[in-house]
Amino acid sequence: MTTIAVLGAGVMASALTNPARDNGHEVRLIGTHLDDHIIDSIKATRVHPVLKVALDENVQPYYFTEAAQAVAGADVVMVGVNSFGIDWAGEQLARLLEPGQKVLVITKGLQADADGTLRILPHVLQRAVGPIADRVTWSAIVGPCIAGELAVRRPSCVVFAGEDRASLDFLAELYGTDYYHVWTSTDFVGHEVGAATKNVFAFAQGFAHGILTAKGELDAPYVMFNFSAALFAEGSREIHQFIELIGGDPKTADGLGGVGDMFVTSMGGRNVKAGQYVGAGIPFSEVRGVHMKGITLEGVAAIGVVGEALERLTERGVIEPSDFPLVRFLYDVVAHDAPIDVPWTRFFGGLQPRRLVSAGQR
Amino acid sequence: MTTIAVLGAGVMASALTNPARDNGHEVRLIGTHLDDHIIDSIKATRVHPVLKVALDENVQPYYFTEAAQAVAGADVVMVGVNSFGIDWAGEQLARLLEPGQKVLVITKGLQADADGTLRILPHVLQRAVGPIADRVTWSAIVGPCIAGELAVRRPSCVVFAGEDRASLDFLAELYGTDYYHVWTSTDFVGHEVGAATKNVFAFAQGFAHGILTAKGELDAPYVMFNFSAALFAEGSREIHQFIELIGGDPKTADGLGGVGDMFVTSMGGRNVKAGQYVGAGIPFSEVRGVHMKGITLEGVAAIGVVGEALERLTERGVIEPSDFPLVRFLYDVVAHDAPIDVPWTRFFGGLQPRRLVSAGQR
Repeated sequence: MTTIAVLGAGVMASALTNPARDNGHEVRLIGTHLDDHIIDSIKATRVHPVLKVALDENVQPYYFTEAAQAVAGADVVMVGVNSFGIDWAGEQLARLLEPGQKVLVITKGLQADADGTLRILPHVLQRAVGPIADRVTWSAIVGPCIAGELAVRRPSCVVFAGEDRASLDFLAELYGTDYYHVWTSTDFVGHEVGAATKNVFAFAQGFAHGILTAKGELDAPYVMFNFSAALFAEGSREIHQFIELIGGDPKTADGLGGVGDMFVTSMGGRNVKAGQYVGAGIPFSEVRGVHMKGITLEGVAAIGVVGEALERLTERGVIEPSDFPLVRFLYDVVAHDAPIDVPWTRFFGGLQPRRLVSAGQR
Repeated sequence: MTTIAVLGAGVMASALTNPARDNGHEVRLIGTHLDDHIIDSIKATRVHPVLKVALDENVQPYYFTEAAQAVAGADVVMVGVNSFGIDWAGEQLARLLEPGQKVLVITKGLQADADGTLRILPHVLQRAVGPIADRVTWSAIVGPCIAGELAVRRPSCVVFAGEDRASLDFLAELYGTDYYHVWTSTDFVGHEVGAATKNVFAFAQGFAHGILTAKGELDAPYVMFNFSAALFAEGSREIHQFIELIGGDPKTADGLGGVGDMFVTSMGGRNVKAGQYVGAGIPFSEVRGVHMKGITLEGVAAIGVVGEALERLTERGVIEPSDFPLVRFLYDVVAHDAPIDVPWTRFFGGLQPRRLVSAGQR
């Protein structure tokens, strides 16, 4: 039996207690200081109040004040906070981690240095924890997995990516079940970049629904799948390019860690919902300030981080102004309230765009 | 003004009259011998009876008996039949084509030689028409475009792919509008293979709906997007591999001609519907013989062609038995009534599968 301490009791961290418990491991689920109501609910009824699903009766809930006790002696320490909590999580790990522990990160996102250099979150955590970073191992879970589906044991296929092959094999063994299928990869950067940037493009998958809603054509015989598919295709191209830019293997984007993850994220969720509002003609500042006030939008946040970094990287000549046209457009939408006037002609840079001619030449 | 003769009055061929007419070209829409009712309807009301949308009033409808007159003197000859009609279309083109014409193929599929060698349909047509093949140019339209959406002028992004750069530029100019965005590419094989194989994988996108239906869980709070996304991801990997196998550029699968097209095809249609029946537990032979009797299923037909070819290619040692696990599984479903027991562990061959251990070792 292995002991897993999970920092953060959000939906994905909590859903992942299923395969761990089904394989007979000890799971200590530690709420952050914001999660007391979740821990209360689990202690009282086993039901996770956001998932609305009961966790395994032997998952051990801990309040954040008990974190040190929960992490002590654990074999695996999962980082289950969302991307807004990553610096906070770094501070906690700095004091809690013990040599030999295997860190498993499920937080998705990127951070940028002042010069636009983009970093995957496990690398951000490594910097944050100091010297202990080299005495633990670092892995992450990526791939198309909606937490609620895992919570009810629907089939899911994911990748455990990391730097240390032995840890990956150990962790895959720990979590793999007949409904939770685990592959492993040492393309840590490629998988983490794919997981972070797919969130960027999921926002755009709400646009068509919003446009149709505003036109009163949501139930029209022919909707806008062509439009969404073109955005999906350009998103796929840009995920491949991001992975290459940040130093991963672009082929990673072909599978679970890229288009597979983007597909599942496009099927719904909060970022898609935000995209629907914008598609319907509402400026993003109003979406954030009124319609979705107080709601965590990790994908939109990633657009901000990445969009700003692209400006720095362009100034430095690392990338061309014509690179990443979809991300730049999305950044314009969320940072400057740009309308949904998709710059199609800038997309698909690898192909030859139609020559533009005046109407008179036709 | 340019003259375009279109052989076949199916939904896509007919929808494409929109951008051609909006750009002011002469369009002659020729029904096949099976399309008389469509031509009748267009002559009487302008409405295409399957699209249920009125075509431009200046589209000129022709019965098949008038084909020679319609093709004579045309600058462009579009092949608009479905994949079951490709050999028939080859016979017609052999007698109708004139030197200097630009052939534009919208039929999607692959044909296999007896040894399993797979050919794109424009190459099949080139063989069929004989010596005139070298005196015309060959191009094709691919990318995510549902015909009905084009028929009502929803935004669409497509690729005109072919061997002759000048023809591609000419054709892109002919068809490009502010709602029909056209890129061009000389990766003819890559784009045609992507367009054909995406149909194969769309069938699998019906499974989840069928499984949930059979369980009475279609309205459950958590459905099976993870399952569908994993199939999408493996489909993407196999499209890349098919393009490489047949001699195209695998990067073509990253964009409109691969995952973009698979995305739109996954959103619905007859192949997805067939997949839903199978997902619900109905053997495919019963789906074909009873539930969808008489309905054209191009994607399923492509599974048959490709699945059989893979067996020949494996025997010859061109590919490994472990290659293309999803296509082989789908072939087993349609050819041998295999149940939907997805062979997950065979997927994602580039990643390290979890080592299997006995329960006792846990």
